Amino acid sequence: MPKTIKKVGVLTSGGDSPGMNAAIRSVVRTCAYHNIECLGIYRGYQGMIEGDFKEMGPRSVNNIVNKGGTILKSARSVEFRTPEGRKKAYDNLVKAGVDALVVIGGDGSFTGGLIFNSEYGFPVMGIPGTIDNDIFGTSHTLGYDTALNTVVDCIDKIRDTASSHNRLFFVEVMGRDAGHIALNAGIGAGAEEILIPEEDLGLERLLDSLQKSKASGKSSSIVVIAEGDKIGKNVFELKDYVEANLPEYDVRVSVLGHMQRGGSPSCFDRVLASRLGVKAVESLLDGKSNYMVGLQQDKVTLTPLEQAIKGKSEIDMELLRVSDIMST
Amino acid sequence: MPKTIKKVGVLTSGGDSPGMNAAIRSVVRTCAYHNIECLGIYRGYQGMIEGDFKEMGPRSVNNIVNKGGTILKSARSVEFRTPEGRKKAYDNLVKAGVDALVVIGGDGSFTGGLIFNSEYGFPVMGIPGTIDNDIFGTSHTLGYDTALNTVVDCIDKIRDTASSHNRLFFVEVMGRDAGHIALNAGIGAGAEEILIPEEDLGLERLLDSLQKSKASGKSSSIVVIAEGDKIGKNVFELKDYVEANLPEYDVRVSVLGHMQRGGSPSCFDRVLASRLGVKAVESLLDGKSNYMVGLQQDKVTLTPLEQAIKGKSEIDMELLRVSDIMST
Amino acid sequence: MPKTIKKVGVLTSGGDSPGMNAAIRSVVRTCAYHNIECLGIYRGYQGMIEGDFKEMGPRSVNNIVNKGGTILKSARSVEFRTPEGRKKAYDNLVKAGVDALVVIGGDGSFTGGLIFNSEYGFPVMGIPGTIDNDIFGTSHTLGYDTALNTVVDCIDKIRDTASSHNRLFFVEVMGRDAGHIALNAGIGAGAEEILIPEEDLGLERLLDSLQKSKASGKSSSIVVIAEGDKIGKNVFELKDYVEANLPEYDVRVSVLGHMQRGGSPSCFDRVLASRLGVKAVESLLDGKSNYMVGLQQDKVTLTPLEQAIKGKSEIDMELLRVSDIMST
Amino acid sequence: MPKTIKKVGVLTSGGDSPGMNAAIRSVVRTCAYHNIECLGIYRGYQGMIEGDFKEMGPRSVNNIVNKGGTILKSARSVEFRTPEGRKKAYDNLVKAGVDALVVIGGDGSFTGGLIFNSEYGFPVMGIPGTIDNDIFGTSHTLGYDTALNTVVDCIDKIRDTASSHNRLFFVEVMGRDAGHIALNAGIGAGAEEILIPEEDLGLERLLDSLQKSKASGKSSSIVVIAEGDKIGKNVFELKDYVEANLPEYDVRVSVLGHMQRGGSPSCFDRVLASRLGVKAVESLLDGKSNYMVGLQQDKVTLTPLEQAIKGKSEIDMELLRVSDIMST
Repeated sequence: MPKTIKKVGVLTSGGDSPGMNAAIRSVVRTCAYHNIECLGIYRGYQGMIEGDFKEMGPRSVNNIVNKGGTILKSARSVEFRTPEGRKKAYDNLVKAGVDALVVIGGDGSFTGGLIFNSEYGFPVMGIPGTIDNDIFGTSHTLGYDTALNTVVDCIDKIRDTASSHNRLFFVEVMGRDAGHIALNAGIGAGAEEILIPEEDLGLERLLDSLQKSKASGKSSSIVVIAEGDKIGKNVFELKDYVEANLPEYDVRVSVLGHMQRGGSPSCFDRVLASRLGVKAVESLLDGKSNYMVGLQQDKVTLTPLEQAIKGKSEIDMELLRVSDIMST
Repeated sequence: MPKTIKKVGVLTSGGDSPGMNAAIRSVVRTCAYHNIECLGIYRGYQGMIEGDFKEMGPRSVNNIVNKGGTILKSARSVEFRTPEGRKKAYDNLVKAGVDALVVIGGDGSFTGGLIFNSEYGFPVMGIPGTIDNDIFGTSHTLGYDTALNTVVDCIDKIRDTASSHNRLFFVEVMGRDAGHIALNAGIGAGAEEILIPEEDLGLERLLDSLQKSKASGKSSSIVVIAEGDKIGKNVFELKDYVEANLPEYDVRVSVLGHMQRGGSPSCFDRVLASRLGVKAVESLLDGKSNYMVGLQQDKVTLTPLEQAIKGKSEIDMELLRVSDIMST
Repeated sequence: MPKTIKKVGVLTSGGDSPGMNAAIRSVVRTCAYHNIECLGIYRGYQGMIEGDFKEMGPRSVNNIVNKGGTILKSARSVEFRTPEGRKKAYDNLVKAGVDALVVIGGDGSFTGGLIFNSEYGFPVMGIPGTIDNDIFGTSHTLGYDTALNTVVDCIDKIRDTASSHNRLFFVEVMGRDAGHIALNAGIGAGAEEILIPEEDLGLERLLDSLQKSKASGKSSSIVVIAEGDKIGKNVFELKDYVEANLPEYDVRVSVLGHMQRGGSPSCFDRVLASRLGVKAVESLLDGKSNYMVGLQQDKVTLTPLEQAIKGKSEIDMELLRVSDIMST
Repeated sequence: MPKTIKKVGVLTSGGDSPGMNAAIRSVVRTCAYHNIECLGIYRGYQGMIEGDFKEMGPRSVNNIVNKGGTILKSARSVEFRTPEGRKKAYDNLVKAGVDALVVIGGDGSFTGGLIFNSEYGFPVMGIPGTIDNDIFGTSHTLGYDTALNTVVDCIDKIRDTASSHNRLFFVEVMGRDAGHIALNAGIGAGAEEILIPEEDLGLERLLDSLQKSKASGKSSSIVVIAEGDKIGKNVFELKDYVEANLPEYDVRVSVLGHMQRGGSPSCFDRVLASRLGVKAVESLLDGKSNYMVGLQQDKVTLTPLEQAIKGKSEIDMELLRVSDIMST
């Protein structure tokens, strides 16, 4: 029979993403709602090792639902990869009276949680927080929807100047090894071509597409490129390649960079964070462990952490077709 | 055997919503992709009656994916409710060579399309465009996601001033008879209480909740109220009622109004519009008629227009619980 | 010879406005830069009476430059209008070691500061913080530029729906008895007509203008109305009047309300706040008192508080003419 | 006696900037207001040479006041640098009945206008349109205020992730050889250090400042760097230098890029554009030529084009001091 949970620890780990604060708020208030305590752990696993803690009540999380970043901060922890580091972390949690852990982060963070659970039997629940949407078991990770809006907003601005000058822009967006951001934001921003790691179009196809675009009367074009694209060239090399082969084009490059990770979360991300936080805490109270809460077909679900880590979040192939048709 | 479609007419009808232009663009470009013609019909059914048409090719819809409103404009048509009006509209379509119709709008617009189909056997497909999300057969209508972001952005601003002055704000949001906007934006904006038509909390409960909120140490509060709420008082009467019963509160009212219908669509709405436009045109080409394209469990689906009109889009009861927990 | 200042108190009073936090940050850091102490006073003069204080160092104001509202909160104080109230306030300041006061607010707040100075000889400097821009001695008050952007952003959204439906909108904006917001935001938003308290156009003129607008081929129109407009009718009565006299118009009303006071400050307001905070503190250190710091012809200046309170911030008449020409 | 102006040509040239469309609208409507004609010239001087013209009436510029970019498009013209090119341009203008020219652009565009005037006696007025604010004779160029808001909005997002991870970010902003954007947006965004071409701090000073910043308890830092900074290293070399000298820092680089040139103009830029357009046309009607309209000490003024081209727009040294104090 599972031990009764009296105090939940919550941490954010890995790259921050919009909605993490809303998730922290949800975990803290769900604990308060069920009359259990909640401990905030600063700087992820490193803070667990250093005992960098803060007791959190429902008023500790006032006015953060709309804030980007994470008030608990995030950090990498080399020490947590060692048994000694995890032992310190465990001792600190026990001393603080913590019975269970909610980890908000990506698959690296979940792996840390799984190992910790396997060594100490500590109940762990994961909440997927990353803008990259590259986690199996959830249609949306926290921050992904916000990042899409940030990207289309940036490309809308770039399009103003692109169409004023009849120019071609290559815009590089985030996504690690996944093309979710590039594909969705590319469609949303009306990109003429989208290069993602999941689909190797080849350079020939890109040249073809650009020539067709010009022939069809388009005077300016946006190509969205995922940072992890496997085309074998980075975005600046790609510019050189295209200019060498299509001298009529004057290519400009824009790498959107870290601003994609920040900003006030969208309504979608705030609501999702609230739902996932409730489910994470209540699942712990139900005696569950080693699951990731996520959204599947609009419902909050549980996926074993192991599957979440190993599984692959697939690109929706329908969207590639939609993208092709839209650039007619 | 269905007649081959050679030319599709597209119109927007009813209240405009962000994403309608992206849907028009998608319809136009999907037609071009399949080498069929496309006719833009201005001002909804009224423009059909008046023959207010424009031939549209893929370049006619450049740079509108990010624009609010509808370039085809919208209008109510009393005349289309008469057989004579519909006869004129039919004659105009035939004269223009149009074989099929895509109607972007709400259930009133779909009803018009159904009647038109029943009288003239004209193939009709519907795309749900309204910020209210009150249409059966789709988890999201076009513009709903954008409206949610607009509302939370407004309430974030109101919260700045609410928390600077320790005040209580009543914020009225749109949604006709549905509480979708109020419930989701209320959770997203961190509202202390949300009043929606689907759930009659009663006035007592509201007073209770506000008292509890003050007792719990909250110094400012936001109450989100759906315009169609059945509590029996409008938002200004509600203010008077609360101030009479809880004299410690100084209530301010904000009615967000029509700005909720405008603005550049979110990435979600742009992608959804693109997907639905493709499906609408390709379904017509497949010989289908009298369906609404929609999104269900993340997939693009077809729902008979009759069901879309008669069915009710239900509130997710889980969200009411999440809202309660969040206001701990 | 003036007493050496060793500790400055800072408070925000009256309606909050975007940029107040940036001004607090500037006051606090300018004190630190000059190695003097700074005391934050919560809830304006009421907090002074209640001794609701907080010592502030440069790190107390991290990450607030971009936040709307005021971290020191604001409140009205009836008690400060009494000699007894002011005595308590004075005693608290003395006890806390405070030598001088920076008051961020509008003319009501400055009047309180002047009286306090006259009774206790306490050095006082004012920083003009209000969105209404109705203070003599500064071309821009803190928050005014941000409010203008908020208003044009809202009207841009309303215009989407106005032009989709060929409708007339009356949009009421803030400004107390001053038309600055209405006039500038009206020009910025492309309003067809702007009604401000400083200029009584009369109702006939409004009807004329609307008829001319329709005749000139405009299919939709926005009229911006200052809340303090003296036309003798509120915005809803105006709607009834216009609809009675110009039945071809279907008028919609939108009252933008309190959101105009919130939101992240514009770059202009943040820089202005930073400049004014420096000048306020350094003027106190120079032995000055009873001045308001402000911006005049792009330079930071001092205006005697008495003049700032009594003077009138005039509308730029050139702008009225520009507005007329723009609605051609 | 100057020839009566009956038709004004308007063009945009050089890099586009937000507010150019609002200026075009103002020129067109001011012409209509004074009952003279207006000709839109596409793609700057190149379109003048090619006769790429469009007659513009007051309704041609509906709904563009809030659009970024330029509907008249912009282009570089090598041909206009030749007497033959200018001859063609002149002949086209004469054929089209154009009597005078309004050039919206930067100093390169003004130089073209001056030469054209010297050769053909054609009346020319300039409107300063560039985000860089590097033009003498105006406190603000069109688009500058908007770009500042775009930059602070981006840096606010970057700060979310910087403070979540206790990181140092180098953010490169536009401005050609001028530090206006970097200095103002740097203060607005709360940057710890700002590197501008006008002030060579030297690399030592940067290291000092970063060390002091860490010592003072700041856990994350933003350094804003103007693209034209003369420190002798580009932003990536600067990162390497700092990481080599201050190994405790993990530096991230973000180059904001072209998005700074786009976006919906701020209220300030829209109002400024409206004012400058009126003045430009009315000055031509008054028989003036070879001036740039600008804003000086809040008033619309005329500066001889020659001075505008040769003069230097100076950085406000007070702001450097404010920036220093703010990073205390």
